Formats: sequence, C-alpha cells, structure tokens
Amino acid sequence: MELLEQRILKDGVVSEKGSLKVDRFLSQCIDVEFVSLLGKEFYRLFGSCGVNKILTVESEGISVACLTAQAFSCPAVFAKKRAPKKDPSQTKWKAHVHSAAKNAGFDVVVGKEFLGKGDRVLIVDDCLSNGNMLHALVELCEQAGAELVGAGIVIEKAYRDGGSQLRRRGIRVESLARIISVSVEDGVKFC
Amino acid sequence: MELLEQRILKDGVVSEKGSLKVDRFLSQCIDVEFVSLLGKEFYRLFGSCGVNKILTVESEGISVACLTAQAFSCPAVFAKKRAPKKDPSQTKWKAHVHSAAKNAGFDVVVGKEFLGKGDRVLIVDDCLSNGNMLHALVELCEQAGAELVGAGIVIEKAYRDGGSQLRRRGIRVESLARIISVSVEDGVKFC
Repeated sequence: MELLEQRILKDGVVSEKGSLKVDRFLSQCIDVEFVSLLGKEFYRLFGSCGVNKILTVESEGISVACLTAQAFSCPAVFAKKRAPKKDPSQTKWKAHVHSAAKNAGFDVVVGKEFLGKGDRVLIVDDCLSNGNMLHALVELCEQAGAELVGAGIVIEKAYRDGGSQLRRRGIRVESLARIISVSVEDGVKFC
Repeated sequence: MELLEQRILKDGVVSEKGSLKVDRFLSQCIDVEFVSLLGKEFYRLFGSCGVNKILTVESEGISVACLTAQAFSCPAVFAKKRAPKKDPSQTKWKAHVHSAAKNAGFDVVVGKEFLGKGDRVLIVDDCLSNGNMLHALVELCEQAGAELVGAGIVIEKAYRDGGSQLRRRGIRVESLARIISVSVEDGVKFC
C-alpha cells in the first residue's frame, strides 16, 4: 500500500539496533484517520469473505482492530496476554506463545463466548515478524471451531519467516507493507 | 448517558464476587459502533475545549481512546505499563501506579515526543474506581507541561473514592455512567 510505505518512510524511526519503530502513527501515538484508511484497505481485500469478527491481541493490535471493525461493521475482539497457567480454563480459549528473544512465554486468552462456531474471523495485527503471535491467534480460532478467513497485517517483516510459515499453512495473509530490510545505513526497503 | 446505562443493564455481567464485567461490549469484545457513540458524547462534553490529544493507558482504554479521537479529529496516545524502574528516562514521561489489591505497583510511561507543552489533553478510560491510574495519567500531563482539559470516563464506580478525589483536585471528570452499587442480589444501580 503506497500510502503506508510513504508514511513509514516519513515517520518511521530506525533504532540504533536497526529495528523499525512506528510509534508516531501506529504503535503509541495513533493517527486514527490514517489507521481508518488501513482498515478500509483490509475491507477492500477481505470485504467479500463474510467476516463477522475481527480478532487481535493486546495492546498494539487494538487500534488497528477497532478501526478495521468499523469498516466491516462487526465487533473487534482482543485476546489478552497472561502469565502461563497449566490448568485448562472452562471459560477461555488459551494458546501459548513462546518468545525466543526472552526465552520465556505467555498465554493469550479470549473468552469462549466471544469466539465460536459460526464465526468468520479476520485476524489483524500491527506487525508480523516470526509469527509466533499469529500462530497462537490461529490456534484460538481452531479451538473455538471458528472459520479463519485470513490475516490482515499492517507491517510484515518479510526478512523474518513468520509470513512464509503462515502462508505455507494455507492461511491467506495480506500485508499492507512488506519490509525486506531495515538498517541504520540504508533505512527501510520494501519488497 | 441513558443509552449506556441500558447497555450495562442488558449486557453487563455481575460476577459472584459482585464486580461488574462489561466484556461483551467494551472490555474484550468491542462494539465499535456503540463505543463511537460514547466518543461522540465525550465530544459533546469537551468539544469546545480545544483538545488536540486523547490520552489513555493500555489495554482496555485504547478502544475508547481511538473512537473518541475520531470524534475530536486528533491523535490518540496510550501510556504503556511497565515493571517499575528507579532510573529516570531520557525519552519517556513516567509515573508510578500503586495497586493496593496486589500490594505491588507498576509504571506507566509515554514517549516525551507524544506529550508536551502546547498539548491540550483529554484523558479517557473505560473505568474509574479508586483513581490510581487516573492520577498517574494526570502526573504524566504535569511532567510534560501539557494542559489537562479533563477526564472522560465510561463507567465510574461512584461507591469508590477515585472520582471524588480527582474532582477535589479541580479536575473536570465527566462519567457517562455512574454506578452507586453492584451486587449479585440487586444488580447494578446508577446514581
């Protein structure tokens, strides 16, 4: 999406470690008018799929989910992050996310009443990197018996494996910007 | 706000412990069309105050902040929760929140570039109880030298002290629903 790439080039900040920060319009200070346009783009891509629920995970995904849900005229549901528990829950779907970076993990949970059979779900998130979070959201849909329509991602780090893995699983992943490289020297390059 | 009170009576759930859950339309499954109406109500109340930034804290506040920011045509900024750090930060405003319930606390932080002099801030949140979180958000505004216009709260637990405390500090607090009591026996009663 040309408009998003331009915005990333204008307002994205590449940290000293070479990671891209989009706090200025997406991750902490939210340009709601702009993010609404991203939601409309997801609607253009998935609008004919009968989506009746937008699913994301706290916190950065919530703004994208809400402003996308407006375009789809359906509710947005967000999974919460929790310290891992071994016990199964009677009231919540639960999937585990392992963070290799922190050598630790957490659970993502969503109330069973908010995700179930008959739901046609579009997962959205601000960012897709190694895909661990997305796999967990897919698992929540599977547990719930909900139909997964696909995943709408704002920024995919295409130099990581997450997107490829999900597509190999047969999941339709649509990313509005796909980044092939980020560095302090050369800035952000798109696919 | 009559519409909100009706919705709480229809979809709110009183837990066995007597606390009100509004997961079905506000806290986990977000009825974006309805929450937009709450945002418009905040605009009716604060629309003449020159607000140029909506401030909240992750996670439940984000949906309210985004859909309120739309009504104000301004950005939404959310503070993040972090484990407490003693060191001051060069890049972030930081305030501490003590949780009496957990006998522990956390910091809320927001990038200095997103809150500063010249900003006229409306704080919004889904819920106001003892007010600890609100006091921390007010402190962030004070540190930043931003002008606080007031606080827009969806549900105030008026049987707790938070709202009174903030009003005694001279802060304009507008709550769309004020609850005077919640119990399994009698349900939810409004002021």
